[in-house]
Amino acid sequence: MNGAESLVHTLINSGIEVCFANPGTSEMHFVAALDRIPGLRCIPGMQENVVTGMADGYFRIARKPAATLLHCGPGLANGLANLHNARRARSGIVNIVGDQATYHWPYDPPLSADTAGFAAAVSAWVRTAKDSASVGRDAAVAVQEARAGRISTLILPADTAWSEGGVVAEALPDISQNHVDVHAVEAAADILRARKNVLLLLGHDALLKGAQKQAARIQEKTGCHVMAESINGLHQRGVLPIVRVPYGAAAALEALKEFEHIILVGARGPVGFFAYPNIPSLHYPESAALHCLARAEQNAETALESLADLLGAQKQISAPPSRRPEIPIGIPSSESFGRMLAAIMPEQAIVMDETISFGAQIYSGSIDAPPHDWMMVTGGAIGYGLPCAAGAALAGGGRRVIAAQADGSGMYTLQALWTMARERLPVTTVILSNRKYQILLGEYAGVGANPGRTALDMLDIGNPDLDWVKLANGMGVEGAKADTLEGCAALMQGSFKRNGPFLIELAI
Amino acid sequence: MNGAESLVHTLINSGIEVCFANPGTSEMHFVAALDRIPGLRCIPGMQENVVTGMADGYFRIARKPAATLLHCGPGLANGLANLHNARRARSGIVNIVGDQATYHWPYDPPLSADTAGFAAAVSAWVRTAKDSASVGRDAAVAVQEARAGRISTLILPADTAWSEGGVVAEALPDISQNHVDVHAVEAAADILRARKNVLLLLGHDALLKGAQKQAARIQEKTGCHVMAESINGLHQRGVLPIVRVPYGAAAALEALKEFEHIILVGARGPVGFFAYPNIPSLHYPESAALHCLARAEQNAETALESLADLLGAQKQISAPPSRRPEIPIGIPSSESFGRMLAAIMPEQAIVMDETISFGAQIYSGSIDAPPHDWMMVTGGAIGYGLPCAAGAALAGGGRRVIAAQADGSGMYTLQALWTMARERLPVTTVILSNRKYQILLGEYAGVGANPGRTALDMLDIGNPDLDWVKLANGMGVEGAKADTLEGCAALMQGSFKRNGPFLIELAI
Repeated sequence: MNGAESLVHTLINSGIEVCFANPGTSEMHFVAALDRIPGLRCIPGMQENVVTGMADGYFRIARKPAATLLHCGPGLANGLANLHNARRARSGIVNIVGDQATYHWPYDPPLSADTAGFAAAVSAWVRTAKDSASVGRDAAVAVQEARAGRISTLILPADTAWSEGGVVAEALPDISQNHVDVHAVEAAADILRARKNVLLLLGHDALLKGAQKQAARIQEKTGCHVMAESINGLHQRGVLPIVRVPYGAAAALEALKEFEHIILVGARGPVGFFAYPNIPSLHYPESAALHCLARAEQNAETALESLADLLGAQKQISAPPSRRPEIPIGIPSSESFGRMLAAIMPEQAIVMDETISFGAQIYSGSIDAPPHDWMMVTGGAIGYGLPCAAGAALAGGGRRVIAAQADGSGMYTLQALWTMARERLPVTTVILSNRKYQILLGEYAGVGANPGRTALDMLDIGNPDLDWVKLANGMGVEGAKADTLEGCAALMQGSFKRNGPFLIELAI
Repeated sequence: MNGAESLVHTLINSGIEVCFANPGTSEMHFVAALDRIPGLRCIPGMQENVVTGMADGYFRIARKPAATLLHCGPGLANGLANLHNARRARSGIVNIVGDQATYHWPYDPPLSADTAGFAAAVSAWVRTAKDSASVGRDAAVAVQEARAGRISTLILPADTAWSEGGVVAEALPDISQNHVDVHAVEAAADILRARKNVLLLLGHDALLKGAQKQAARIQEKTGCHVMAESINGLHQRGVLPIVRVPYGAAAALEALKEFEHIILVGARGPVGFFAYPNIPSLHYPESAALHCLARAEQNAETALESLADLLGAQKQISAPPSRRPEIPIGIPSSESFGRMLAAIMPEQAIVMDETISFGAQIYSGSIDAPPHDWMMVTGGAIGYGLPCAAGAALAGGGRRVIAAQADGSGMYTLQALWTMARERLPVTTVILSNRKYQILLGEYAGVGANPGRTALDMLDIGNPDLDWVKLANGMGVEGAKADTLEGCAALMQGSFKRNGPFLIELAI
């Protein structure tokens, strides 16, 4: 057995089922091992940021890691941006990255680069396999790390893959932090019992259904406020009509001004996405006290349950009433686009939100939708959307994915459409087409000047206008254009009946 | 004057004329400064690897650096692969990368990342500006480095851009290594006088016209062989009918087996692009002695001229006769595609060659073309082609660029087509469409197995087939399909009369 074969067997032993892949020459022996050994489904992406973004989307929905297969050096580099987003979403991923054979390194061939250096900034764990005998054990550790929501990168020099002497490793124990910090629970209970202006701020796993149910018990018992962080990797909606901390400093400070205590559950104290001159970095009152019930890597649900029990909260909570809105008509606004989604989305749909400037009210506008999952660009690296939607669809077992995609960001990783077509993924993409980097025009206005020709050259993406239907068709995805909400809704409803992807270019 | 304004003035003082850009929020004050201060042409790219690839192509033709403007962290990361190629081509580039305001770093907002860490693996010089007063001086050093063929990355935290106190710096002296190593010249002369089996191996600047003329004098005088390295950033053809060292180990060893001495001029001793089991890493005879006349960073032309003079070579060399072939007809092969290029390309055309598997004989097939420039993917990071062609066109002052682009690689950075349309660049792109990662299927065969379903899932990029004409149309570039050499030639000749880009999808 060679090293590559021991790696495949170990990944399968450790529970990995899917490998998102864009291999190169240095990975051929691993590809051959994947071919010989059944058990891993391999999904190609036509650029590495598509590959890593799919792995992120897969984790968010499957709640378990996939592997990626990436080419050495620059291949990995192409996928770093979506690994950054995945890191911020706490999506575990096992990157398998090929590299030059160890004995060939001293010759510094053109495609040698600092692969470990590229990996370092996004990975919690990086290891370069030393020889074929250690590859299996390395892989087991890599999966163990990834199952705990971290990104691990195993670099596989070609000779460690092709040499005999591979040893298969068994799965290693779960190292997720599932214990409850009883002191933190007691402290939170004291605050909730004593004070009126308390915010329970949920982030990461605290936005999964089970955790939200416990938060609802606490809210019902104490009358505290419950909010979500501004940006979330996965928010399972339909348990609590939960409000997010606004993105901008002024709105966030206004929304949070009354709170004397903020209890963090998988969340951090709200701060600015960027700093601006004369605007505070902190988005909550300096007078507020922060308390940590559970850090992002701890188990939010059990911590909240312990707290609810300690407070003597009722076990059952009432589900919010379902009251889908009518399909709105006319020119889309952010709010009405959200309402339209609520009107038509299938129950248990998955919404990918990379709406950027247009997205401000889509989330609140869709508050009356049936239960569904909502995913956002957690690290601010644009181009997460289409790949994440594809990966989520692969994990979703037939659930419809609605990809609400801004045009400028969508262009970063449009190659994901090809994978959607190839794998017949149930993804309905709506391109929100305003033909400019609108968010940046807004930011530019904040600098205090009207943009001149040079600035517009960099911020306006019309001239020539993109035709997204042609782009989709060019990659095998059917599509159509719409310029009204009712037109978009009709096309979306038609797409829900399809066995595969569809794209709508919606003028906004 | 704020830091951003001092930066723009300093770049202009230092001779920078073009800034390839994809800015984000943290760069808005720099965008505003570019808008207010005339002198830098700003060219947008819809993804950062397009931006950095354009800067590479620009340097190759202009022989001077451009600036890039990149967004913090993941923005830079998206552009690393083509910076890797640029580094291997010795293309100088000044990257200006925004970042979070310095005082905002401790809050670790979602879009903060290790920007300097991302930059390190591809940059010869990395600096994070400390304050607005030092930005100008930092920029002058960055340009000085880049003019010497190196990649410099200046990270610009937002507050160093927006704060007052900027100080403009003057251009710094040229630090290129232009001196001749007289001992190396004498040693080379001794070898050439005494031995028959000597190879003069040219790389980097030794493949510019002036240096090749000197190499031709030496060849005429001594009867030595002259070859080019296997992969070259810019080869100015039309001086010497020069042969490249073959890519593969067996062919390279066969081609080089007779040589007892190899004199390196801007080149390195040939080695394998990858290692393979039981195949040597060195692609030249172990018995051959390597001698270095000039390293890549030294001036090849003056070293060769000194050597030619010392040998008493004639000053004038005869130009090779011009003898364009007829346009070949029928189904394209690698060789006949090259011959077709030779038959029709305009004099002083620029050829971008990212032909991968199909490209083996395009170069030799085009040996009878009129003088032209030939660019290759120097670092093996695919997706350099379309951006590099766009950047070369910007530097070329109206010269026609022929982008010979493999389909799988082209998909990596197809967004470059949009910039070609927007800037009406004279680029004729020929997509060599075989609908598979053919190079990898060849590599897979080398592993010794027929690919099964899983391997083909990763190596075959048909199903669905890409339609490149639709993809081009979607970004505002006109196009057409061809399946014969004469059909492709006719479309190309038509495109040469256009004021802007055109794309041909050629079935191979």
